[in-house]
Amino acid sequence: MRFKRSERIVFMTQYLMNHPNELVPLTFFVQKFKQAKSSISEDVQIIKSTFQKEKLGTVITTAGASGGVTYKPMMSKEEAREVVYDVIERLREKNRLLPGGYLFLSDLMGNPTLLNRVGKLIATIYMDEDLDAVVTIATKGISLANAVAGVLNLPVVVIRKDNKVTEGSTVSINYVSGSTRKIETMVLSKRTLPENSNVLVVDDFMRAGGSINGVMNLMNEFKAHVKGVSILVESKEVEQRLIEDYTSLARLSDVDEYNQQFTVEEGNSLDKFS
Amino acid sequence: MRFKRSERIVFMTQYLMNHPNELVPLTFFVQKFKQAKSSISEDVQIIKSTFQKEKLGTVITTAGASGGVTYKPMMSKEEAREVVYDVIERLREKNRLLPGGYLFLSDLMGNPTLLNRVGKLIATIYMDEDLDAVVTIATKGISLANAVAGVLNLPVVVIRKDNKVTEGSTVSINYVSGSTRKIETMVLSKRTLPENSNVLVVDDFMRAGGSINGVMNLMNEFKAHVKGVSILVESKEVEQRLIEDYTSLARLSDVDEYNQQFTVEEGNSLDKFS
Repeated sequence: MRFKRSERIVFMTQYLMNHPNELVPLTFFVQKFKQAKSSISEDVQIIKSTFQKEKLGTVITTAGASGGVTYKPMMSKEEAREVVYDVIERLREKNRLLPGGYLFLSDLMGNPTLLNRVGKLIATIYMDEDLDAVVTIATKGISLANAVAGVLNLPVVVIRKDNKVTEGSTVSINYVSGSTRKIETMVLSKRTLPENSNVLVVDDFMRAGGSINGVMNLMNEFKAHVKGVSILVESKEVEQRLIEDYTSLARLSDVDEYNQQFTVEEGNSLDKFS
Repeated sequence: MRFKRSERIVFMTQYLMNHPNELVPLTFFVQKFKQAKSSISEDVQIIKSTFQKEKLGTVITTAGASGGVTYKPMMSKEEAREVVYDVIERLREKNRLLPGGYLFLSDLMGNPTLLNRVGKLIATIYMDEDLDAVVTIATKGISLANAVAGVLNLPVVVIRKDNKVTEGSTVSINYVSGSTRKIETMVLSKRTLPENSNVLVVDDFMRAGGSINGVMNLMNEFKAHVKGVSILVESKEVEQRLIEDYTSLARLSDVDEYNQQFTVEEGNSLDKFS
């Protein structure tokens, strides 16, 4: 089958988008289209310059016999700001405040379009961290972790708060919940995370940081290196925070449960974009 | 800024891929590229024919003032077969069998590349069902449901087995687990699913179908219409199945826990592809 340049470009664009952060050998396209390497390189150049012009990400070409092309999705600061303010606007909706100063987030965590955009934003911040896995805590963090991991081409590792028979042998730790001061348990299946992994921790909500602190301790048990922590919404309603180094998209404060009033402002994520 | 046809095609391909099952008005591209509608229509035609030729999905164009273009990702039967046998091969790996005839699936559920392919397969089966939401059960079903919902451009609704303060007011039902015969509880936040929704139920594993049967009862409480049930792996090791109408990618049988032996064969999903 013969392909015109424009058809090759359609195919290659969709292929690279379906394989983010993965080295695709040029020979794959050369063989598929039965074209000279030079023509394929020109096709790649067109995709690369368009992605650059439109700030859709970087297309990296590596030369040599084992050379190829890698698509790194990236978000521009302008788009990141749009995403952050989209999240903030949604958070400000009425009736989102739940007893105890929690926010109802299940609808946001079930919105694939929003998740994809937030995932791309967080992935952009940690793109150069040489990560092995994205770690999260069940239940609501899972969707967000998947969105981030999809962009970074990494596995997702889910820490659970119950011990299920379907996890095989596990490592567990106890931790003190920062807000309730209760002792809780966290469990991770041994075989989901190899020792010495570099991990990014992702979650939907953080108050004092007790859960995230628990994750840190559990990561120690796996000899993992936590290269970053990223939270969708953090609450400023705490006296002392157990975790210092993290990024968040939005910050909740001035919570007045009785009158269902609160303030949402932008977190520090945008500072990470130049 | 001026754009060449090849650049327009790169942009439009990525845009459509990022907005599956969404009507994109032609005027959006007309304005972005400052081009006549006829040129943009020709660009769309090139994308459409390449997607068709490569079996990457359907690009539907609707005419008129409010007309536009909708990208419906679809999987060919050949690719679906590849995906099913990729899943089966992974399931056959040693040490996957857990006590009680369960399979360790957390690694598969944490693999974004695999999830995207499985999600596209399941989405293709139910593409024409006029769905409003994808429903799943915490914890491991969530990633799969997200992958399916991303393709279908639908929200994900997560049923939990615990009642968390972060869900707001909830509806709960009790059900008898088909395998353990124990009474368990299922909870769904009221505001995550409007009444009379058409839903697709997705989960990672099914034995007797007690959980899925529970989901059916819970969906009744929400006056929802279950348009389909899709499972990654079903176990044939049951005397009586509570659920009859579903699709599965793989089937587990002949489980011999003592010798860590079992059989995995293809489920009925491929029958749904013509």
